[in-house]
Amino acid sequence: MADEYTPLDYTVSLHYDRRLYREDIAGSQAHARMLARQGIITADEAERMCEGLDAIRAEIEGGSFPWRPELEDLHMNVEARLHELIGETAGKLHTARSRNDQIATDMRLFVRRAASETAEALRGLQRALASVAVEHTHTAMPGYTHLQRAQPVVLAHHLLAYVEMFERDAERFGQAGARANVLPLGSGALAGSPYPLDRESVARELGFDGVTANSMDAVADRDFVLDYLFAAAACMGHLSRMGEEFVLWSSEEFGFLRLADEDTTGSSIMPQKRNPDLAELARGRTGRVYGHLMAALTTVKGLPLTYNRDLQEDKEGLFDTVDTLLPTVAAFTRMVGGASFNRERMAQAAEGGGYSLATDLADYLARKGLPFRQAHGVVAQLTRHAEERGARFDELSLEDYRVFSPLFDEDVLGTTVATALESRNVPGGTAPSQVAAALARVRERLGM
Amino acid sequence: MADEYTPLDYTVSLHYDRRLYREDIAGSQAHARMLARQGIITADEAERMCEGLDAIRAEIEGGSFPWRPELEDLHMNVEARLHELIGETAGKLHTARSRNDQIATDMRLFVRRAASETAEALRGLQRALASVAVEHTHTAMPGYTHLQRAQPVVLAHHLLAYVEMFERDAERFGQAGARANVLPLGSGALAGSPYPLDRESVARELGFDGVTANSMDAVADRDFVLDYLFAAAACMGHLSRMGEEFVLWSSEEFGFLRLADEDTTGSSIMPQKRNPDLAELARGRTGRVYGHLMAALTTVKGLPLTYNRDLQEDKEGLFDTVDTLLPTVAAFTRMVGGASFNRERMAQAAEGGGYSLATDLADYLARKGLPFRQAHGVVAQLTRHAEERGARFDELSLEDYRVFSPLFDEDVLGTTVATALESRNVPGGTAPSQVAAALARVRERLGM
Amino acid sequence: MADEYTPLDYTVSLHYDRRLYREDIAGSQAHARMLARQGIITADEAERMCEGLDAIRAEIEGGSFPWRPELEDLHMNVEARLHELIGETAGKLHTARSRNDQIATDMRLFVRRAASETAEALRGLQRALASVAVEHTHTAMPGYTHLQRAQPVVLAHHLLAYVEMFERDAERFGQAGARANVLPLGSGALAGSPYPLDRESVARELGFDGVTANSMDAVADRDFVLDYLFAAAACMGHLSRMGEEFVLWSSEEFGFLRLADEDTTGSSIMPQKRNPDLAELARGRTGRVYGHLMAALTTVKGLPLTYNRDLQEDKEGLFDTVDTLLPTVAAFTRMVGGASFNRERMAQAAEGGGYSLATDLADYLARKGLPFRQAHGVVAQLTRHAEERGARFDELSLEDYRVFSPLFDEDVLGTTVATALESRNVPGGTAPSQVAAALARVRERLGM
Amino acid sequence: MADEYTPLDYTVSLHYDRRLYREDIAGSQAHARMLARQGIITADEAERMCEGLDAIRAEIEGGSFPWRPELEDLHMNVEARLHELIGETAGKLHTARSRNDQIATDMRLFVRRAASETAEALRGLQRALASVAVEHTHTAMPGYTHLQRAQPVVLAHHLLAYVEMFERDAERFGQAGARANVLPLGSGALAGSPYPLDRESVARELGFDGVTANSMDAVADRDFVLDYLFAAAACMGHLSRMGEEFVLWSSEEFGFLRLADEDTTGSSIMPQKRNPDLAELARGRTGRVYGHLMAALTTVKGLPLTYNRDLQEDKEGLFDTVDTLLPTVAAFTRMVGGASFNRERMAQAAEGGGYSLATDLADYLARKGLPFRQAHGVVAQLTRHAEERGARFDELSLEDYRVFSPLFDEDVLGTTVATALESRNVPGGTAPSQVAAALARVRERLGM
Repeated sequence: MADEYTPLDYTVSLHYDRRLYREDIAGSQAHARMLARQGIITADEAERMCEGLDAIRAEIEGGSFPWRPELEDLHMNVEARLHELIGETAGKLHTARSRNDQIATDMRLFVRRAASETAEALRGLQRALASVAVEHTHTAMPGYTHLQRAQPVVLAHHLLAYVEMFERDAERFGQAGARANVLPLGSGALAGSPYPLDRESVARELGFDGVTANSMDAVADRDFVLDYLFAAAACMGHLSRMGEEFVLWSSEEFGFLRLADEDTTGSSIMPQKRNPDLAELARGRTGRVYGHLMAALTTVKGLPLTYNRDLQEDKEGLFDTVDTLLPTVAAFTRMVGGASFNRERMAQAAEGGGYSLATDLADYLARKGLPFRQAHGVVAQLTRHAEERGARFDELSLEDYRVFSPLFDEDVLGTTVATALESRNVPGGTAPSQVAAALARVRERLGM
Repeated sequence: MADEYTPLDYTVSLHYDRRLYREDIAGSQAHARMLARQGIITADEAERMCEGLDAIRAEIEGGSFPWRPELEDLHMNVEARLHELIGETAGKLHTARSRNDQIATDMRLFVRRAASETAEALRGLQRALASVAVEHTHTAMPGYTHLQRAQPVVLAHHLLAYVEMFERDAERFGQAGARANVLPLGSGALAGSPYPLDRESVARELGFDGVTANSMDAVADRDFVLDYLFAAAACMGHLSRMGEEFVLWSSEEFGFLRLADEDTTGSSIMPQKRNPDLAELARGRTGRVYGHLMAALTTVKGLPLTYNRDLQEDKEGLFDTVDTLLPTVAAFTRMVGGASFNRERMAQAAEGGGYSLATDLADYLARKGLPFRQAHGVVAQLTRHAEERGARFDELSLEDYRVFSPLFDEDVLGTTVATALESRNVPGGTAPSQVAAALARVRERLGM
Repeated sequence: MADEYTPLDYTVSLHYDRRLYREDIAGSQAHARMLARQGIITADEAERMCEGLDAIRAEIEGGSFPWRPELEDLHMNVEARLHELIGETAGKLHTARSRNDQIATDMRLFVRRAASETAEALRGLQRALASVAVEHTHTAMPGYTHLQRAQPVVLAHHLLAYVEMFERDAERFGQAGARANVLPLGSGALAGSPYPLDRESVARELGFDGVTANSMDAVADRDFVLDYLFAAAACMGHLSRMGEEFVLWSSEEFGFLRLADEDTTGSSIMPQKRNPDLAELARGRTGRVYGHLMAALTTVKGLPLTYNRDLQEDKEGLFDTVDTLLPTVAAFTRMVGGASFNRERMAQAAEGGGYSLATDLADYLARKGLPFRQAHGVVAQLTRHAEERGARFDELSLEDYRVFSPLFDEDVLGTTVATALESRNVPGGTAPSQVAAALARVRERLGM
Repeated sequence: MADEYTPLDYTVSLHYDRRLYREDIAGSQAHARMLARQGIITADEAERMCEGLDAIRAEIEGGSFPWRPELEDLHMNVEARLHELIGETAGKLHTARSRNDQIATDMRLFVRRAASETAEALRGLQRALASVAVEHTHTAMPGYTHLQRAQPVVLAHHLLAYVEMFERDAERFGQAGARANVLPLGSGALAGSPYPLDRESVARELGFDGVTANSMDAVADRDFVLDYLFAAAACMGHLSRMGEEFVLWSSEEFGFLRLADEDTTGSSIMPQKRNPDLAELARGRTGRVYGHLMAALTTVKGLPLTYNRDLQEDKEGLFDTVDTLLPTVAAFTRMVGGASFNRERMAQAAEGGGYSLATDLADYLARKGLPFRQAHGVVAQLTRHAEERGARFDELSLEDYRVFSPLFDEDVLGTTVATALESRNVPGGTAPSQVAAALARVRERLGM
């Protein structure tokens, strides 16, 4: 650890910003072509620049690009190489541009792409969940509050709860991408450019929705990074909840879920042990993404306008977030696809020791006119009585029921997990028909 | 500190959730009316409930409501009081509803209102900035990068940079409000309701855009809280940047800004000291809002479905965020309105010791055909020469200029802060005409 | 929400800083007495000040103090009241003191007390854990990794793991208190005092270990707040882990733990439902404390010296942290005391379906000379074989064992949960004798 | 971004945990020797293991080690290589050890070393500050509150404020290292080891202060990572404050400081522009370290005992923190060493436009018996009068003074910045003699 650090080491960003080469080159080419269209450079100069940049991209992708850390960052590496390839003309590429609006452009292109790919990956996870859900619109399991069994639900309903979460996430990434999608190029170092630029045409060529309205804001703003990071944090929060449940369900105590061999690690010595490592790692990596959001927020706090070197810190946390989130979504997509659910264990648990239908009995009475709070009280007494006798509800006779309320009728004896499920027949409820309808809507939305 | 705590103290939420009384009562009334429409209770029962709830709201607003902490929360206080006012019928209000979907509804109504009011408050701040900007479309000041004077800008341009930031913030609050605006009522404890509810009609009555699609998600989800908190964090980040600049500009060293007496605190003994306390407090309170976001993210991390008591923690941080952000925006709106700018000090600083136009000289050469990187080099030599002679650019003769490049012509002598400003004549640039146009668009958007 | 805010509202701190009245008055009295000792004021003046301050404390504690929000903070309220009580002499109390060193003194006194009380509260929780552990030095339960049953442990061992965590927490609070315990008074506004003060004597009187070494640091430093907040965050992390386990153990699936009635909330309708609300709330409140730490870190980031109004934000998060942590520790102390453990369910689970002793079999072979990795492999095969046959280890014969390795001898049949527990007989291990010894050391340390 | 991810990619840690090779090998060698001493393996076996491990370390350091990512982590790479080098005996190294106690040992060794090196680096920065301070015990500059000039101080005093901050930081790192310095080896997977280990001797050999007291805690605990991260966060907070001031002082507006050429980046075109990039980057990287702390806190929140795969996330954030903090301290040490201060600009600013001595005049009156609050009032009037006349204090006559109070005497005319500085002659104050004494103590402590 005690190595010597030089000021250069401290400021170099090449090892991570080189990742932006595609965005950087595309931005430069669009800039060059616009300069030519506006007569600021010649068409021939622009063409040579674009060809040189094409060659550079090919070198980078082919692994032959001569990266030079002493040039500190991607921009200078590309510019220096371009000079080698096309000579003095390379010096004109920086006309009407500064590193401040250039890097802002690169980053916005990156965020736009990351947001789009993340949203697409989430669609994949939703599809995986929907595919499993199709098999389980009638698979009963306990629904929990406070991690106590509360009311039975069907597994498909539970899985669709996650589909809803990821739907909001995808929307958030869409909005993050849209807010990023405005072109800062043309803002110069901070004050705008003294050249007769056609910013709109550059925006069109690069697929931006428009141009930034204020040059000072354009070079000082990193909101689009925050937007992506927050969307990622919220999404990791959801994945951590799902991860927690997969860990719980994989435990011997729950026994609801068996993950595919390739999605667990076992101790070779304890083959019955199936550690849900993917789910645990995802849960753990939630902290990492939260941390990157907090880091970015801290970095922009209290910064005066316009560009400050602090903003160089916008990249690594963002990149690591993308590199954490996308593989996590991919891992969960696989994990869901490979999971097998133990219907018997879930069904047993849904019975909940015989009292999971207490709410249904109260609703039964309420439907017969008893104010809900009173119905509540009656069933509480009934349950206590049954517990003391060691009897489950379905072992009680109609007489037993009527001791507690004359409103109980023959039909109360037909209250089962299945009828309880059927009864939650409102939009959004767990009745299998509602779940099937919800699932159909989801599948249509996902093009399945 | 060493007082005894009882379990009750630990779980009571009344002291903060009572703030939701408006939302809670509105939700209950809409629920009651729907129950009657669906024939689950009678029209008369619903009417009595609604009247009772009207009376309760009046009691709360009049300060005569008998709050009972031992009932722990708002819901139980309202329900108990309703029972006193209208008798047994009160017990039917809880039919087809649980505390889980009820509190989710209250919270969404609150977030929707908070988001809307925050966006509106931001419009006020934008208007204040635009009003000052109108006076300063030609007021020169230094534009900074790295807190070093870089290029001159006009003050209006700088102020409009903040207008842009708050525009994104307002959009974020709009999206947060929209995402919150879906009705969870009807989701029951977690599985949906066994009653034939008309959820859509309740949604319409309460102004929701629709109903939640999955009951388990509906009671477990607090994304809408996160959305508001993040929008607030991003906004406080912007306010902290503005606060930092107001602090800097108020210093003797900058001397650009004099805040109104009522927006500073002075030491009575040092009347020349004008502490920009509002700006400092806002900057400091950024941490508080960041912290609330981090708290909420931490709280939801790894929670299994559906409702867990952890989620009770969704409220205080949100309320404190609203109570921090709205006053901060209000304080800044006043502060901007009362600020007076020192045009002379800013103009002097814009001259930047005579070399602030170096970039303009390089652009001058580049426009005459010299590749930008070479133009850059020429002006660097020129500047060094001038520095050594102790001369400002405007004290150099044409001959002096031509020593460094024959491309310099008579017109170079006309390069001033004013021409530099005029030259940044691209959309988003600081040329006064561009700024005036941008300002006009902003004012139109703000209905000014 | 749309109320009008005045600048006064924004800066007022009285509603929370009044809590420091004890510290503030003690500091003022020590200051007055020192001023008299140094001949800066007369002994009589000092006495009148001290008496006046005694009266003020009595008024505050008796509820008769006339708080005036328009005076903004505690200091001004006390000073104004002192003026009313003792006249012009009150004006001399501020001699050689500024609000900057005064509030720093108050806050350090507060943190010192809070740290001490928190450490003491943690001792109470450790005692509660130790008291339960005494009953369970032989109570077998599964030890988990990855929430998969791995090896049996005794419950006392598990509980002592928490005692260790809280021991580190107590140490952290001790160090936080010690680092806070240096007197800043005498630092003036920032530069020190022009009076011949005896700072050391004030330090002694107030129980400080010494005086701050640099006046600028003394008024700008809030490290002692960070220290407390971090110690609290780490401690809440531990409580959240314990809370998570209490939630798990209280579930029907685990069934290890039954919390006392007063520590759960049930649905009256589902008496079998015992929601572990205290544990859940504590887990949820972890986020709140993490958030306060992040808030304080953000607030001090990038602040120039010396005092800035941002630092007013040091109080509310600290106070709320104390008010969260102390009740959480108290709640857990009660909860532990009232918990009853289900020995049977734990013992069953410790058997782990018959294969929880796989590691012990491998260790058996390794002790007989087989390299550990090979022993590992042999037992893996054995386990797979047993699984396929549907047999538990204790249903296998010696012949079965010897198919896989000739090193197995008669004594392998004696491998049970009890022998597995006994075998972990190293310091820190779960062998009941080791646990009893560890527990004895803990109890001695706690004076039990 | 859209690459395919495999489960392996998701769980591999080799690319970062290989950094622990020194710790891992040292731990293994100590373990092997102890196994031999205890007769669990033979002395010969231990020797071959140790030699093999020496060879592996040499391979790693020489760059010839055949890393295999498919083996996922450092441990398996070392173990597999050892098997190649020494055959079957390698399999015995894992006797009485699990990856859980092994990695905990590695990490504690790493944190101990990191903490020690960080504290040492901070000593270097303190020395650099003290070296500059020696030159400036009489260099006047303004002391600020609210970024408003408040009272003059000497530069050495200001620099020593930072020395104090880093002193607390070094203490924190010392405590973090000490708390980490307990040996977990011997805790097995979670329950302890069934072998007759001599844990204390391993602890001694590896320089630990003792052994962990509870095996479950030992494998589940990551407090020592949190301790380091928090110490780093607090330290980065201090560095960010210093960075902020270096940025301010480097601005044209302040003009107090000229950084060495190699510590700034300039625009070659604007040679007068000296961007304080190191200071800005350090300020920006504060967020990164705060984020890593928050990440680690989030990761441990709510984790049940004992080891969970989430804990793999303890490494990267820690490593990046070390790799951020140490270079930042090194960069600041250089930057301080290369900084030159502009005594004239600072002295001018210390005069503060003529009114910076207002507090001193009030103290003058108070020393003559006027209650401080009244003295305050008198000087306020005097200052307002002087401002209106456009006169500085030192342009006023004794008669002018006496208009406001008859207590003013001839000697008031001698009040200057120098006398103001001299007057703050209390321990910790800015009087040059006090500062010289404080500096002498610091230098002695630092062995200078």
